[in-house]
Amino acid sequence: MQKKTNIQKALKRKYPEQIVLVTTKKPEGGANVMAVGWVAIASEEPLMFMLGIDDGAYTYELVKKNREFVVAFPNEKMAREVLMVGTRHGRGRDKISESGLRIQPADKIKAPLLADAVANFECRLVCIYQPGDCPLIIGKVVAASENKKAGLRRLYTVRAGYKLSGVRPLRKS
Amino acid sequence: MQKKTNIQKALKRKYPEQIVLVTTKKPEGGANVMAVGWVAIASEEPLMFMLGIDDGAYTYELVKKNREFVVAFPNEKMAREVLMVGTRHGRGRDKISESGLRIQPADKIKAPLLADAVANFECRLVCIYQPGDCPLIIGKVVAASENKKAGLRRLYTVRAGYKLSGVRPLRKS
Repeated sequence: MQKKTNIQKALKRKYPEQIVLVTTKKPEGGANVMAVGWVAIASEEPLMFMLGIDDGAYTYELVKKNREFVVAFPNEKMAREVLMVGTRHGRGRDKISESGLRIQPADKIKAPLLADAVANFECRLVCIYQPGDCPLIIGKVVAASENKKAGLRRLYTVRAGYKLSGVRPLRKS
Repeated sequence: MQKKTNIQKALKRKYPEQIVLVTTKKPEGGANVMAVGWVAIASEEPLMFMLGIDDGAYTYELVKKNREFVVAFPNEKMAREVLMVGTRHGRGRDKISESGLRIQPADKIKAPLLADAVANFECRLVCIYQPGDCPLIIGKVVAASENKKAGLRRLYTVRAGYKLSGVRPLRKS
């Protein structure tokens, strides 16, 4: 049975929640990266992602400027790197080298792939909506790559306070 | 290291993926329910959800007509019910009674809460976007409820072919 509760309290029941990393090219060279939890598929054909990215984020500025970015699924051993890039601003620092994230060139865009991600999706900006307090960035996937390790799994936010971990299904089918 | 691959093949690396149930009031009385995997938070204050719902779905018609709906997190023991309501059309049938889903009245809207869900969010329609092949429904949360059982956990799609299960973090912190 349900009991009425505060909206933010009910939302704490959402975990585990998926998390992605978003890379963008910096104008002076190099790249920036941030962590995003507000992410969903927004179209199947062509494949599009929706990302909720605060308009104060450096990534937001770079997405608007470059009109392209990479959406990467971090693997479950990347909690330390995701926590580092997800809790610091990117202006005036190099979060990729500071975090130790390994990058490699993308196929169709200038933002880099994350070499150790489960998969990377190269996106071109379609549009930006804003129904509430956060811009919703829609990107069309123009190329994709996956990790050569077939069994590698995604990282999740498993509870409040940026607690990150892999997860396992209770049963196989 | 990454290897270039087909976009849909890379997307198969997304699991586990969250899943929600969406309830809507039917004009003739009673309610409909469907399962949605394309879901994300779209605003924090006020809280909004984004749902990707095909324009051929009965739920899409009812959301446009009623301008309100409930987003519920199914609990990890509801795989059978979610599979049933997620793979059948709702026009001309009563998926709620057929599936055995238990409902209870919502606080502010006419669509029902799911009594056994982890949490329910009563939403009013804000707008509908369509950047690609699927309408993206934005709902503002106007009331919320949670299950009286504190430890109850969400259900996930854990692999392709509608395989549903609860998940557990690999570690607690």
